[in-house]
Amino acid sequence: MKRYAVGADLGGTNIKFVIIDETGKVIDYYESTSQADKGRKVILHNLISGIKYLLNKNKKLNIVGIGVGTPGLVNAAGKVVTGAGNLTGWNGTRIRFAIQKVINLPIFVDNDVTALALGEAIFGAGKGYNNVICVALGTGLGGGIIINQKIYRGKYRYAAEFGHIVVNPKGAPCSCGKNGCLETYASAWGLKRLAKQQLKNNKNSLILKFAQNNLENITPKIIFDAYLKGDKIADRILNEMGYYLGLGLSILVNIFDPDVIIIAGGISRAGKPLLELIYKYIYQHSLPFYEGKIKIKLSKFKHKAGAIGSASLVFENLGR
Amino acid sequence: MKRYAVGADLGGTNIKFVIIDETGKVIDYYESTSQADKGRKVILHNLISGIKYLLNKNKKLNIVGIGVGTPGLVNAAGKVVTGAGNLTGWNGTRIRFAIQKVINLPIFVDNDVTALALGEAIFGAGKGYNNVICVALGTGLGGGIIINQKIYRGKYRYAAEFGHIVVNPKGAPCSCGKNGCLETYASAWGLKRLAKQQLKNNKNSLILKFAQNNLENITPKIIFDAYLKGDKIADRILNEMGYYLGLGLSILVNIFDPDVIIIAGGISRAGKPLLELIYKYIYQHSLPFYEGKIKIKLSKFKHKAGAIGSASLVFENLGR
Repeated sequence: MKRYAVGADLGGTNIKFVIIDETGKVIDYYESTSQADKGRKVILHNLISGIKYLLNKNKKLNIVGIGVGTPGLVNAAGKVVTGAGNLTGWNGTRIRFAIQKVINLPIFVDNDVTALALGEAIFGAGKGYNNVICVALGTGLGGGIIINQKIYRGKYRYAAEFGHIVVNPKGAPCSCGKNGCLETYASAWGLKRLAKQQLKNNKNSLILKFAQNNLENITPKIIFDAYLKGDKIADRILNEMGYYLGLGLSILVNIFDPDVIIIAGGISRAGKPLLELIYKYIYQHSLPFYEGKIKIKLSKFKHKAGAIGSASLVFENLGR
Repeated sequence: MKRYAVGADLGGTNIKFVIIDETGKVIDYYESTSQADKGRKVILHNLISGIKYLLNKNKKLNIVGIGVGTPGLVNAAGKVVTGAGNLTGWNGTRIRFAIQKVINLPIFVDNDVTALALGEAIFGAGKGYNNVICVALGTGLGGGIIINQKIYRGKYRYAAEFGHIVVNPKGAPCSCGKNGCLETYASAWGLKRLAKQQLKNNKNSLILKFAQNNLENITPKIIFDAYLKGDKIADRILNEMGYYLGLGLSILVNIFDPDVIIIAGGISRAGKPLLELIYKYIYQHSLPFYEGKIKIKLSKFKHKAGAIGSASLVFENLGR
């Protein structure tokens, strides 16, 4: 009998829900708001309601489990230990336990980027490969390590914090308290930071125009749009990002000798120009042996990657 | 019936041979010269003679296989592909095939540091841990990644090149052709480089005295000896090394969240002062989460670590 899994990807704005089959194919999809500022009870309600909605709508399917991806560090019991600061009151939530109380199916909870990496590795851009490194360029920079098609989690389930590889010890302060972490360059907030820095002394940029003269409106998309129109400031910003992203990825290559590196997250939607920037810099610091050999792919599942990844936790745990 | 394995660790000066039992205990040990400058035929002869010597001497033991650790990148067929430049004519040698012709036992060949890391992880300082990172501070800086007590090798069997993590893009040229690799600071040649740099403008150092005024005589031991006697130049050199080694190790911690990091190789014999230097710097760039949590141990098997590791390849492949 064919098996199906539900996945829920909890974000700061939306919760995305999917049902996938054993090949990762999306059978159903649903989206709702997370109301992240309303606190634990409301968020949990939204999460569970969405799962129930999809379950009820697809009663004929043999659904074997539910996977949930959440911001923060998740322990083996499915509780958010820490790091979910952008969801009010979310740290400490026993997600698995809360869902288990009302839904009688196996529940698997993990960090959202970890889940995304697994989904892309086994069903998406990494399909057919054994050892996959996933780098998610979102608000911050997250990562996932997939070895022999299984998630590598480390001692405290805290592995793959690629965003906090220090690439410039004398660099800007990072949210983590250290300086010059990779995500101070290669993430939405890192790019905004670089843009503010560049625009301080030079207002002659399309970025400002696209952002309607409000620095707070600057997004990675605006910077890439300006870059593609030949804007010099955008060019400088993205080359600085590209340089450090290339350095960080070369470190991962020298360490993992991976089959493929997948670039996911919102910024990956920039597509080809982003890939070109990465390839421009990644060979500068990787071992000469890798010249021409490094394989980098963009996320296949795009905005559904997190939800598909969360569902894939079910098959990782129950067997594929 | 108890099983035993032979291990041979081929170095630029010596070849070390062991027989170990299934717990990693050394049953017999032997050492001969490698005559690395005499070319492939002589080196192979020395390697095979030593193995045969131990086999003949221990005929009563149930020896189930032979493991060989060699400098260079070794392919799955047991051939040295590249990187064994300090052994004349050694690149291209089909080690497994050559031994197989004359000895009728399963033969396993791998990179020397990879083998060492495995031996330390399963029988030595990493015993009882699942995920172990090994950093070998020798002439250069090599590494090993042990996940779930198995070697992680990567796509081209080239993983764990920790010596070539770029820690200072504007740093000194490395043997690999890039700049500012970790081993330009944390290795015997890196330390010698730093010492020469420091001594150029300041000859007032015990290092010069211990090296009999010949810069080419400088070894890590001489630098540590001077350091322990309060020499200021040695202090500066070792703190520079410590800073970059700490940075490199913090990158490994943020990536692997490992159970333990093992420091091996010749420089590890400096012992406690080395550990203190590492602990002084490793928390500067690791995520605040790890404060006080990072476990670093020194190699247990010291100068026998390579040979024991080579023998452990047998049990990794035939089952433990």
